[in-house]
Amino acid sequence: MKTYTLTLDDLGNIETQNVETIFAQANGFMGVRASLPIQESDSLPGTFINGFYETHPIIYGENAYGYAKNHETMVKCFDLRTLECFVNDEALSVLTERDLKLNLMTGILSETYLYETNSGQQIKLELESFASHFNRTAYAQKIKITALNFSGEVHVKKEAKLLLPNASKAFDPRVREASVNLQKQGNQYTTPNSKLSLYTKFDQIDQTFKLNQTQSFEFEQINQISKENQFETVSYERLKAEQIKIFDTFWSVSDIEIDGDETLQKGVRVNLYHLFNSAGRDGKTNFGAKGLTGEGYEGHYFWDTEMYLLPFFTHTQPEIAKSLLTYRLNILPQAKQRAKELGFAGALYAWRTQSGHETSAYYPAGTAQVHINADIAYALELYEKITGDIIFIQKAKAIIYETARFWISYGFMSKRGFEIHEVTGPDEYTALVNNNYYTNKMAQNNLLYAVRLAHTFKENQEEAKIWQLAADQMYFGYDETSKITKQDDSFLDKEVWDFAHTPKENYPLLLHYHPMKIYKHQVLKQADTILAHMLFAEDKAQVARDFDFYEPLTTHDSSLSRAIHGVVASRLGRTQQAYDFFADSATMDLSDMQGNASHGIHAANMGGTWLGLIYGFAGLHIDNGELKIENHLPKQIKALRFNILYQGKLQSFELKNEKN
Amino acid sequence: MKTYTLTLDDLGNIETQNVETIFAQANGFMGVRASLPIQESDSLPGTFINGFYETHPIIYGENAYGYAKNHETMVKCFDLRTLECFVNDEALSVLTERDLKLNLMTGILSETYLYETNSGQQIKLELESFASHFNRTAYAQKIKITALNFSGEVHVKKEAKLLLPNASKAFDPRVREASVNLQKQGNQYTTPNSKLSLYTKFDQIDQTFKLNQTQSFEFEQINQISKENQFETVSYERLKAEQIKIFDTFWSVSDIEIDGDETLQKGVRVNLYHLFNSAGRDGKTNFGAKGLTGEGYEGHYFWDTEMYLLPFFTHTQPEIAKSLLTYRLNILPQAKQRAKELGFAGALYAWRTQSGHETSAYYPAGTAQVHINADIAYALELYEKITGDIIFIQKAKAIIYETARFWISYGFMSKRGFEIHEVTGPDEYTALVNNNYYTNKMAQNNLLYAVRLAHTFKENQEEAKIWQLAADQMYFGYDETSKITKQDDSFLDKEVWDFAHTPKENYPLLLHYHPMKIYKHQVLKQADTILAHMLFAEDKAQVARDFDFYEPLTTHDSSLSRAIHGVVASRLGRTQQAYDFFADSATMDLSDMQGNASHGIHAANMGGTWLGLIYGFAGLHIDNGELKIENHLPKQIKALRFNILYQGKLQSFELKNEKN
Repeated sequence: MKTYTLTLDDLGNIETQNVETIFAQANGFMGVRASLPIQESDSLPGTFINGFYETHPIIYGENAYGYAKNHETMVKCFDLRTLECFVNDEALSVLTERDLKLNLMTGILSETYLYETNSGQQIKLELESFASHFNRTAYAQKIKITALNFSGEVHVKKEAKLLLPNASKAFDPRVREASVNLQKQGNQYTTPNSKLSLYTKFDQIDQTFKLNQTQSFEFEQINQISKENQFETVSYERLKAEQIKIFDTFWSVSDIEIDGDETLQKGVRVNLYHLFNSAGRDGKTNFGAKGLTGEGYEGHYFWDTEMYLLPFFTHTQPEIAKSLLTYRLNILPQAKQRAKELGFAGALYAWRTQSGHETSAYYPAGTAQVHINADIAYALELYEKITGDIIFIQKAKAIIYETARFWISYGFMSKRGFEIHEVTGPDEYTALVNNNYYTNKMAQNNLLYAVRLAHTFKENQEEAKIWQLAADQMYFGYDETSKITKQDDSFLDKEVWDFAHTPKENYPLLLHYHPMKIYKHQVLKQADTILAHMLFAEDKAQVARDFDFYEPLTTHDSSLSRAIHGVVASRLGRTQQAYDFFADSATMDLSDMQGNASHGIHAANMGGTWLGLIYGFAGLHIDNGELKIENHLPKQIKALRFNILYQGKLQSFELKNEKN
Repeated sequence: MKTYTLTLDDLGNIETQNVETIFAQANGFMGVRASLPIQESDSLPGTFINGFYETHPIIYGENAYGYAKNHETMVKCFDLRTLECFVNDEALSVLTERDLKLNLMTGILSETYLYETNSGQQIKLELESFASHFNRTAYAQKIKITALNFSGEVHVKKEAKLLLPNASKAFDPRVREASVNLQKQGNQYTTPNSKLSLYTKFDQIDQTFKLNQTQSFEFEQINQISKENQFETVSYERLKAEQIKIFDTFWSVSDIEIDGDETLQKGVRVNLYHLFNSAGRDGKTNFGAKGLTGEGYEGHYFWDTEMYLLPFFTHTQPEIAKSLLTYRLNILPQAKQRAKELGFAGALYAWRTQSGHETSAYYPAGTAQVHINADIAYALELYEKITGDIIFIQKAKAIIYETARFWISYGFMSKRGFEIHEVTGPDEYTALVNNNYYTNKMAQNNLLYAVRLAHTFKENQEEAKIWQLAADQMYFGYDETSKITKQDDSFLDKEVWDFAHTPKENYPLLLHYHPMKIYKHQVLKQADTILAHMLFAEDKAQVARDFDFYEPLTTHDSSLSRAIHGVVASRLGRTQQAYDFFADSATMDLSDMQGNASHGIHAANMGGTWLGLIYGFAGLHIDNGELKIENHLPKQIKALRFNILYQGKLQSFELKNEKN
């Protein structure tokens, strides 16, 4: 059994709620935060079930036609971890020591806590737990209770608790209270509005033991939650053995070894661990922005999946990639309905959703990010390129056709070419612009892929001519004087943000400035043109000029920004700069760089770490149908080893730093 | 006593709620809808008190920094008109006839209703009523009840009723239920959140009379409402006599006589009547978009006052003009606070408000309409030009300086000139654009006026240099190829709206299309560049080109649009077209052209009618310090007579149509 352990020493911020996120366990279906075993006010316990959300009507101060109708909030449903313990009738309440060891290689968490009662009677609590990947309905725990400095009666009560609404206090647009009063009927729990049900099979203990000093008592609990009222009984030991096997298989393909920088090595493995844990596996669920580890962004699925997570999954865990893409195929009807509602042809995917319906309550930074259509198309095309799985593409091709139809309808042909107006690109610090470079580039790619599929499957030939024409004539803004790619028609005309007079504590800007103030300036939240260049650009000199222009204007207020800049810096041979971006990205949640790891992991950034290593330092690319690498290792990294599944075959790569 | 009567025959839509709006009575402090005397479900009774609003926190689906915090909704507080009547213990309930006569010359409404009980006992109700302009706390009624076809006991009960919340059903962003449970303590009524109080002195009757057939019974009621607990007792007859005098004085200056077109004559007089009635007189209140006649737009004050109403008041009722401008001076502190909150210098007036605080819950069509600053400055400058009242200007000049400071801070100097980005112009069918022509033109005027005042009052000399520079360098977009003034940087690049495939019932567009769809097209809600041309343009050929380009793209979905197009058409010598716009504008509410007269009058359009006649047909302008006119009468109008108070002196004008 391989061991690679994460401990509290690895964390930059060991506040309870951060620890609960980083050590959370999940299996794609359920996620359980590593909350304290004895209830405490600063602890934020939670169990999340992928795709289990409650709806609430969105209230608008001023409503308008076509606005998204409902919030969908992933429910924080149960506390599976808290126990009550009384020593000689005195409650155990004071935490004096804690020690967490997460074995990333096995997906098993070991915890040790020293607690005492007010009068000083001490108990050692030892927990072993995991969210089973073998039986995804099961959260398994083994609990050992030791009387440290007393002999007497120990009463233990542990049963799953329904979590009730708890109004969040601070204003932060990135979190919404996952508050819901689930309706209970027997072992069935139902959301009042969305009418989604969960069934449970909970273990429970409520017992008194006589323990002499240093004596222990041990018990196991398997708490099960399922979308169907069917449960399989599997022993703790069996679940544990299977967990170890599954993780072993995972790491045998997906592990990345970094020689020379233990901090980065740990950061990368934590990230891959969480990616493996929070990805939906059933084709009906996806990957929330915070995985299944916290309530940030309400559990919504964004473009993050396609542009930040799917490269990793596609290259190493294609079955998971297929499952995440299948989700998009399953919500295509909702996307078609949405396009129609807005008066356009084809399909428009929701910017943020679980059900497939648009839930963005601020369309300028939501629905207007129509690039999500092309992001999905891009990910599907990448999946085809890497896996060669044409059977799935045949199933999913409607996504490509319908998104292509949307572009034709949303854009228009002018004397300048095919233009796409009133969109918001990835950089949410400008909104509702015309001809966003990233959007147009991605739409072009979407259209060309549609053309290719139309030819492959010999269908939609007439439309394909229009798609080809729009792609060929796609308009891209370029400033001939400065030789800079225009982020959009108006970006270069804007006033430059006054960075010199912006105090540090005013970042992220979105929490301290009105959108009107932000939008009117040259200031970026995250990679936009630079992301497009990472995906498509061939002219290095152009990329360098754009990088030098846009990066200093970028606040990296979004966790999606640094990784992309790292990849592009690598390709430009700016190895040290690439390393700095990568280091930030690799340890973002361990160091709590964004200050909100308590809301859950930054999943997209975790996928971005993989991009930084593999696309960046290793320069992975396809050349004449073959995988090729290019060595951009920074001096801190002595060697880099990783595997890629290409066309069904596992290929292993090793890069060494020649400077060492 | 002069008579000029409006009857039901003059209305295009005699549905109850429309009638209640058109025949509403108001005195600047209170407004009383002409609701049915016997309660009926389709009647919408209401008394509105200017500046009496309740606040509710605005709920945002996605909140952000600097968003407006509270709704302010003008309270529909009392029903002063409903009575209950029983004939031999049987309720009077069936309305069989009604006849309304509003004497516009006296501000007195006469109504006759025939009602019967289920068994057919008939009563004639005759009402005379007015909202007193002599004692603005008083709503006076004289009521006569006649037994038509029976003898017996008639029980009459009439007391002011508190109106309770009544959730509105249909979705319409232009209305919000004025629902509030006022807290009552003795004769004091207080809004629970905003803590504003009203005091009342209500008359009440609850009595039984014996009437023989054809016999009558008559009584008077004076219901009083005040912001202070002080009431003066004045007799009905005295109030009536004073009302007649006051209206006589009003019309002696403000009347406009149109020979040859009785429909227009009536439309114009109805409009002027309502303007006189709903204007706040105390410097603490202003003029709601619907006056005091309905709950549309929550009673909010917009730029409508400055750009559509103040020309009329300034030229004929300068005391009212001063009072409306004094309101802006009184809320200057809130405007300074708002600018600061958004990170800008100077003052930014709220787009919609009563208290002075921003209440727009959709900033792209609200706060982003920063042109309101310059609109207020324009109105103040016009007031100075027409009245010469430099004493008031000395008091109010801070408005001009603070708004000038805002422009310097909101805009910036680029190589193209002084640019103003991220604004929404009057045309709300494009939003968040750069260098909106109207905004830049108005800001320039604002800056130049600030420079002039700085010189006059010998102050702010250093700042004045910057103001002058920004004004001199103000950037205006112009398309050299088409010779069209650019509405904004991107307008000419947009796709043209598909008017041919837009069914009639899909207007106004805002109720049938998502903002993203509307904004991305060349389509206008109302005059924008054309409004700027009305105010400033000298090059007729340019105006004509722009008119021919923009007017066909304009839906006139806003009631503020037609009048302005009428004025400009007049000046271009397009007399017939001007007449068509004017005719629409003059009778807009009488004909219920916008389909929502039930929400209240379209006050701005009513002011627009005056613009159409005086700026348009009569071509009024100042030439070398003298008032000049220019005859643009259309063939339908034989003669036009009106007065202007210029520099304190009344000047009378008469234009005759030489073609007749």
